[in-house]
Amino acid sequence: MDIRLIGGPNLIELIENRYGKSRVRLVKVTRHNGHHDLYEWTVEVLLEGDFDSAHRVGDNSNLLPTDTMKNTVYSLARSSSATSIEKFAGELASFLLERNSQVSAVLVKVESVLWKRLTVDGQPHPDSFLRGSNERQVTRLRLERSRDCTINSGFEELVVMKTAKSGFEGYIKDSLTTLKETNDRLFGTAVSADWNYIEAVTCGTDIDFKALHHDVRETMLKAFADHESLSVQHTLFAMAEAALNGFDAIEEIHMVMPNKHCLLVDLSRFGQDNPNEIFVPTDEPHGTIEARLRRE
Amino acid sequence: MDIRLIGGPNLIELIENRYGKSRVRLVKVTRHNGHHDLYEWTVEVLLEGDFDSAHRVGDNSNLLPTDTMKNTVYSLARSSSATSIEKFAGELASFLLERNSQVSAVLVKVESVLWKRLTVDGQPHPDSFLRGSNERQVTRLRLERSRDCTINSGFEELVVMKTAKSGFEGYIKDSLTTLKETNDRLFGTAVSADWNYIEAVTCGTDIDFKALHHDVRETMLKAFADHESLSVQHTLFAMAEAALNGFDAIEEIHMVMPNKHCLLVDLSRFGQDNPNEIFVPTDEPHGTIEARLRRE
Amino acid sequence: MDIRLIGGPNLIELIENRYGKSRVRLVKVTRHNGHHDLYEWTVEVLLEGDFDSAHRVGDNSNLLPTDTMKNTVYSLARSSSATSIEKFAGELASFLLERNSQVSAVLVKVESVLWKRLTVDGQPHPDSFLRGSNERQVTRLRLERSRDCTINSGFEELVVMKTAKSGFEGYIKDSLTTLKETNDRLFGTAVSADWNYIEAVTCGTDIDFKALHHDVRETMLKAFADHESLSVQHTLFAMAEAALNGFDAIEEIHMVMPNKHCLLVDLSRFGQDNPNEIFVPTDEPHGTIEARLRRE
Amino acid sequence: MDIRLIGGPNLIELIENRYGKSRVRLVKVTRHNGHHDLYEWTVEVLLEGDFDSAHRVGDNSNLLPTDTMKNTVYSLARSSSATSIEKFAGELASFLLERNSQVSAVLVKVESVLWKRLTVDGQPHPDSFLRGSNERQVTRLRLERSRDCTINSGFEELVVMKTAKSGFEGYIKDSLTTLKETNDRLFGTAVSADWNYIEAVTCGTDIDFKALHHDVRETMLKAFADHESLSVQHTLFAMAEAALNGFDAIEEIHMVMPNKHCLLVDLSRFGQDNPNEIFVPTDEPHGTIEARLRRE
Repeated sequence: MDIRLIGGPNLIELIENRYGKSRVRLVKVTRHNGHHDLYEWTVEVLLEGDFDSAHRVGDNSNLLPTDTMKNTVYSLARSSSATSIEKFAGELASFLLERNSQVSAVLVKVESVLWKRLTVDGQPHPDSFLRGSNERQVTRLRLERSRDCTINSGFEELVVMKTAKSGFEGYIKDSLTTLKETNDRLFGTAVSADWNYIEAVTCGTDIDFKALHHDVRETMLKAFADHESLSVQHTLFAMAEAALNGFDAIEEIHMVMPNKHCLLVDLSRFGQDNPNEIFVPTDEPHGTIEARLRRE
Repeated sequence: MDIRLIGGPNLIELIENRYGKSRVRLVKVTRHNGHHDLYEWTVEVLLEGDFDSAHRVGDNSNLLPTDTMKNTVYSLARSSSATSIEKFAGELASFLLERNSQVSAVLVKVESVLWKRLTVDGQPHPDSFLRGSNERQVTRLRLERSRDCTINSGFEELVVMKTAKSGFEGYIKDSLTTLKETNDRLFGTAVSADWNYIEAVTCGTDIDFKALHHDVRETMLKAFADHESLSVQHTLFAMAEAALNGFDAIEEIHMVMPNKHCLLVDLSRFGQDNPNEIFVPTDEPHGTIEARLRRE
Repeated sequence: MDIRLIGGPNLIELIENRYGKSRVRLVKVTRHNGHHDLYEWTVEVLLEGDFDSAHRVGDNSNLLPTDTMKNTVYSLARSSSATSIEKFAGELASFLLERNSQVSAVLVKVESVLWKRLTVDGQPHPDSFLRGSNERQVTRLRLERSRDCTINSGFEELVVMKTAKSGFEGYIKDSLTTLKETNDRLFGTAVSADWNYIEAVTCGTDIDFKALHHDVRETMLKAFADHESLSVQHTLFAMAEAALNGFDAIEEIHMVMPNKHCLLVDLSRFGQDNPNEIFVPTDEPHGTIEARLRRE
Repeated sequence: MDIRLIGGPNLIELIENRYGKSRVRLVKVTRHNGHHDLYEWTVEVLLEGDFDSAHRVGDNSNLLPTDTMKNTVYSLARSSSATSIEKFAGELASFLLERNSQVSAVLVKVESVLWKRLTVDGQPHPDSFLRGSNERQVTRLRLERSRDCTINSGFEELVVMKTAKSGFEGYIKDSLTTLKETNDRLFGTAVSADWNYIEAVTCGTDIDFKALHHDVRETMLKAFADHESLSVQHTLFAMAEAALNGFDAIEEIHMVMPNKHCLLVDLSRFGQDNPNEIFVPTDEPHGTIEARLRRE
């Protein structure tokens, strides 16, 4: 097959484009009487709009510099009283949309880093904090020129492990099968879950997003812990179902659960038994289980 | 707003699901007369199909274990003569689709790691190799039960830097602008590009994918190096245009180019000038420029 | 200067050598009546001894394969009842020293990964666990043929932040100074601390290493949180002093505290104040403060 | 054993301390007639001296801020004409030692990142560059108040693979052995090597460090590629021996060579042979082989 063009140059269409600033990191200290609060957020701002001439001829007259977007994040962080990432994302998107008529949509992603107040002598310390796990709270908000607003929130890298009530049996066997069936295995995973809020939950909605996030997460963790798991798919479904059944603010939920295998070590070679006690945790290869669910 | 359900449990719909094995790593040594060839590939296999009962009731009778998919990768790597990631991906997808009637589509992603033959005493060495950069050749292939096949190929993390012919001027200034205009800046980026092949290029197509990948990459690098850049968008467009104009096998191209800023150090505080010589390279925050283009 | 040899080949002396297996990962599940315990350890085993002929002529007759060391870790993990990394390291070192007369010393490093029991409905769950932060408990044990044994334990990447009681003033100013003095800054760091136990604490010592580690860490965290910090050095000293004063089992303590700067954002350019509220956390460059202390 | 102190607080001795700035990143563009040169260096500066009162009472009057060290790196990068990391490290150490009488020793580490000139249309491009592998050139220089200067240079993460002339046989077998002997295995490693220059090579020495580094590296790579390897130790020794025999400027060499195992896949389970063709490359666990050698 001849893979080269014979004819001359083509008209090129710019189907889709967006640009902005990523990894704008921000620490905010709120100084209350007698104690401080600490937030660490990582922000991404992307703009969509008519940037055709910027691409084709280098006409920058419609481009808001990404450096200015960064400045906007810091300036707004100071004037805003938002304590949830969803509320801050909404304010940021609105601010940029209003000031930039060439922009058709603003996409804001905010990740929240886990900081926990230190406990000293059994008491919460007023102004010292300890970094938590790599789990991240995330929101992705999209605000259109039409004022349509969609909010997708969730968490990433919630690493959990079940040491009971997990098996995997009855699957397809063929000439390439070597896996052994088991009704008692370790089940370790790093859950990512994100959910779309129903249409009524929009940029300016006065809702306690932090409390809601906390409750959804607890509901899903409980479902994970208590589930009699017959497969990763089975448990993923149970977790999503619990969230959809528990919270009518959620319209749809998307989950990814890698199966971070813990392999039972064969100690019989050394004359020892291994009654599900010693395992090798592995990072690769790993199973990947992904699904999207909603109420009918 | 009340975010809790009043009513009872809901019917849950499984809108979308896929599962499989990720990060299946593979080294293949091909032993020719007098020299060896070395390939290192990282494979991901995902299956789509009717796995509803697996999710709802833990019925695994339709599930091919991801462990078996891993075995399949290794078994096929032995029997296959494919030397391109596209050809191997196609063979793997076909193999799994044929043997698994419950599957509606197979998605295969293969990444190729850079190994270069060592030069010793000015000669290519027959059996010693040196690891190259983190740039990855990638293909994503999707094969449907209908035999529809789409191939998307490209590269990730091609890190390049221009020290001339790059400026950024004439952009929007507002009350949050602090960026200074410049007609001479460093332009560093980590290019990701992926392109869809035209419909005629399908799973079994006999095309030299490696040569084509090489030529597209060279064409884009030349466009990057020679461009009189007025912005990242401007150069991204020029690179994509060169690829679309040069290769009729490409239907559409998608690019992401982070702007990895190199900040000019202000040495005037120390009584020194800095004629575009000393810069601080930064990882964050970074600009993100993304576009999708095709022939009209 | 001529950097090439004129004379012929030299006699080469092997001054120092060691070898072994690194990153041997291990999950151990202990099944009690009604609940499970979960440990995840990463083990490194290195041997020192007379391996001269292995290096010079490829005589492997004195080499215990590193693969066998890996097997040893798993086999011993099954037979051992150790629940502290120090005890397990001691058992592993003794085992290898006894069986390998060609070995003069065994070095074992064990890192413990943080897993926390899940709380469900306010109760500790019997068999579900949540991954904690990246903080690692570490021990490094060296056992000589003479039976001399040294144990060094500690933690790495304990990330903490003080938002009050931290300043930096009165330092040297010269022509290259641009830093502003402040009596109120954020103080973020990732503490690494390791301590040598006194001679009386040796491989077989029956001591509750886990409780001791916990108490030392709490003591140092309290010192960090309560300190009126005039510099990183000042606080590092206070933390080490508290540990040395609190625990006579510790002979010497070594600490590294990077200063992970949080930079106050200049909002005056936008007509806003910034009363120590909005900061940019940075990863690089970072200060590095390191010291070793002991009782006189 | 009682691990708590009975007595009162102790006198604490500060045995050792150093501080400074790490990860000071620097890009330098040198503009020649018709082409540019590009350097990217990452610098660490640490100071040793009498900082007792800084630690004990927060007296900062002897502390040069790490922020000033960072400024010093940038200021000196502008005024220096050094093109080797060793020369720059020497200038930086001398500069800081001269201006800071409280300092007893300066330690400078400089890493050089690989950038390669782009080739376009078969020609070296004047001002576009491509990022190379993760291999790093590194120097560690220590300058004492007495003017004693030691220079240690080398490279890290030079990832190489031999697909022939490598075996491992004749090792110790015991009850925990499962490894199979082989006279034909893959040998992949990430070489770290660093060497001390002889006393005659000191801070101000006019020697072409870049050429020397290049030649030592080539010599070691040739030894790696051509070696009939009976073990990792055997090849490590051959590489170090070649360097010590080839360059009298080197006094002593230290090497670490992890054995990044490539495991032969057992395909016999699927009725296939595997004549050393298909391997699984693994990151963990890995062998660790380390030695230090010098001329007798």
